[in-house]
Amino acid sequence: MKHVVIVGGGFAGINAAKELGNRRDIRITLIDRKNYHLFQPLLYQVAMSALGAGDVAEPLRNMLSKYKNITVFKGSVENVDMEKKILLTDFGEISYDYLILACGVKHHYFGHDEWEEHAPGLKIIAQATEIRRRIMEAYEAAERTVDPVERKKLLTFVVVGGGPTGVELAGSIGEMSRFTLSKYYKHIDPKLTRIFIVEAAPRILGSFSPKLASKATRALEQLGVQVWTNSMVTDVDANGVQIGNERIEAATVLWAAGVRAIEIGGKMGVETDRSGRIVVEEDLSISGYPEVFVGGDQAHFAHHTDDPLPGMAPVASQQGRTIGKNILNEVKGRTRKPFRYKDKGQMATIGRNKAIVEIGNFKFFGSFAWFTWLLVHIYYLTTFKHRVFVLLQWGWSYFTFGHGARLIVNKEWRFYPDQKKVNVEEES
Amino acid sequence: MKHVVIVGGGFAGINAAKELGNRRDIRITLIDRKNYHLFQPLLYQVAMSALGAGDVAEPLRNMLSKYKNITVFKGSVENVDMEKKILLTDFGEISYDYLILACGVKHHYFGHDEWEEHAPGLKIIAQATEIRRRIMEAYEAAERTVDPVERKKLLTFVVVGGGPTGVELAGSIGEMSRFTLSKYYKHIDPKLTRIFIVEAAPRILGSFSPKLASKATRALEQLGVQVWTNSMVTDVDANGVQIGNERIEAATVLWAAGVRAIEIGGKMGVETDRSGRIVVEEDLSISGYPEVFVGGDQAHFAHHTDDPLPGMAPVASQQGRTIGKNILNEVKGRTRKPFRYKDKGQMATIGRNKAIVEIGNFKFFGSFAWFTWLLVHIYYLTTFKHRVFVLLQWGWSYFTFGHGARLIVNKEWRFYPDQKKVNVEEES
Repeated sequence: MKHVVIVGGGFAGINAAKELGNRRDIRITLIDRKNYHLFQPLLYQVAMSALGAGDVAEPLRNMLSKYKNITVFKGSVENVDMEKKILLTDFGEISYDYLILACGVKHHYFGHDEWEEHAPGLKIIAQATEIRRRIMEAYEAAERTVDPVERKKLLTFVVVGGGPTGVELAGSIGEMSRFTLSKYYKHIDPKLTRIFIVEAAPRILGSFSPKLASKATRALEQLGVQVWTNSMVTDVDANGVQIGNERIEAATVLWAAGVRAIEIGGKMGVETDRSGRIVVEEDLSISGYPEVFVGGDQAHFAHHTDDPLPGMAPVASQQGRTIGKNILNEVKGRTRKPFRYKDKGQMATIGRNKAIVEIGNFKFFGSFAWFTWLLVHIYYLTTFKHRVFVLLQWGWSYFTFGHGARLIVNKEWRFYPDQKKVNVEEES
Repeated sequence: MKHVVIVGGGFAGINAAKELGNRRDIRITLIDRKNYHLFQPLLYQVAMSALGAGDVAEPLRNMLSKYKNITVFKGSVENVDMEKKILLTDFGEISYDYLILACGVKHHYFGHDEWEEHAPGLKIIAQATEIRRRIMEAYEAAERTVDPVERKKLLTFVVVGGGPTGVELAGSIGEMSRFTLSKYYKHIDPKLTRIFIVEAAPRILGSFSPKLASKATRALEQLGVQVWTNSMVTDVDANGVQIGNERIEAATVLWAAGVRAIEIGGKMGVETDRSGRIVVEEDLSISGYPEVFVGGDQAHFAHHTDDPLPGMAPVASQQGRTIGKNILNEVKGRTRKPFRYKDKGQMATIGRNKAIVEIGNFKFFGSFAWFTWLLVHIYYLTTFKHRVFVLLQWGWSYFTFGHGARLIVNKEWRFYPDQKKVNVEEES
């Protein structure tokens, strides 16, 4: 009975687990710090109040309960002893025959960890809820204040990073401020909300073709989003961002820029790239340790590709499946197969009826692209229940222009926690 | 133009606002510390993972946007100067012609505020999320531990207070542990979960008839809930509760016992009862200050009744409407009418197909009562959208025995916060 230990229940981990589930001569232990699998591509919709947390996340135990040979533990990994084949966790040691590391990435602030409290990233549900809270609190404070300078700052939102997540966040804020919020406030005009995407590279959406990126820029501008390219953020504080000699005063800054692999590759003493990702062999194992595999965002896979594969759900899913299959092959006495990424294309949505889709040389934009985006995301959602409920929520929002889940949930659970006082005057 | 200020967007505040909305010669300012109206009767279902937060809460701005004369501010009230007719808030002073206080209640720990961190109550969404987190974390830790004493403590849940909320919480934990969770864990049997209701009075559900309360007790027992009556909690700590000389070791304690009105009556120097509720006149105004009304849980109304009216949604809704109508009457030069409570009965659910309903002398129990409970709650839900989505969720859960929203959302938004270490050994 071979013991396979999987660390991380994201797209890579869960797909590896499914390949190995209910197979003979294999038992599996899956460890995650969260108790849920997250459909990351739609997490920004939770942050933007369009979906609830339960629509994009599914408890790992639910997903894996049909596999009798899988045990799930909620816990975190501290190190790996690859010589002794032992995983060190916060609840003890676990020995393995095969290890699959799929711990993902966290946000990286280019050596400025102090920026994090002013500019949350978007990787787990608690961050989505926090981003939602900050956006809605900014509008509430703007409604209360009579100071025009303060109000302007409160109605300014900066998204750092012009990749798909940054574009989706900024586009959603643009759409929400232009179409949804305007009728809800008496003292402010949410249509005056200023939104910025600040991107260090010469253009946004660098992984897409220049033509599609240009169309997306135009669509963002129509939603009131100003796209600043060639703009490297040099400081972030509680009142805004500094871009060299330029400055934007903003109460809300969101981080959609760099990521860095979860710190475990460094501890293990294996080869990592600049972002902390573990460099893997063609079969996704670590050089010299054929029983240790790395998949998903944590892996640096650069075979047969110009660049290392990007941190995307399809890459992670395919890698997870390949790792699972290769372990199965080996247990059955067959040889391993190298990993080959099957590029299914990429897409990003900007707003209502607007998206960009790029599948090989097939590139399109607009409402057909948006509809494609929608269908693909519904199709890939984790469970049938999620598909039904997300479709219903989207249908409802589409026809009512509403964002139903616009609740501010306090960070503290105590009744009526002390609130941070906002420096405002009473008006009415 | 008379300025009506409403403090609190619960059932009393929102119903008063609706009576006065879009009326001539009246402008309204509604202030709440939260940005949402909460359908409190179903909050326990959010705590028990049966519904999402968005299913039971609606942003106040959405609910009131159709009334042109209502301004909403998110803020909190610090005091009232009834002589100058000024409300003191954390964002400045607001003068009023009429004031409606409907601030509600918070949990009261009988002088032991230090119990709160070990036994959260259930009044706002953040508390529901925290209760959910504690329950699910207890099962996760039980799955990890190999220490049988620790495991027993982790699988023990104590609900303090045997009113409708306590019964609904305990019944849900019973049902979840007996029917839903059992297939999800490999090392523990969730059916062995111990659940206690600890009630100081001689019986639970004191507001119901003894016969119905007895049927409810039997139904709870069938779900594995032990009902301890005549049991006054004398201490609560991180490891359990003390009841005189007896002790229950429990990792999770929930508080559904005493409540106390939000501390503002005391500051205002008006007559309050033992629970801090403001004693009101027959028209719900404060004696000597006919322009100041109190409604909902914050009011002590004992005219034409044996006891002060209980803190229930129907009482609060009716009081809010009466206050609104009386202000309208006065503005139009008519006289006020005294408040008369129209008793629509009370109900509580214990579990699948089991509830108790008492409407006057009409008392019933079982699946018909459960179906009545279900219809009444759907009917009274705040918006049409909530009705549709809650009905869908319930339908889904009923036929699949599932609790879909069983996500643990961390209290902190930072990526992978340091977790409290659980003292366990590795097992597999």
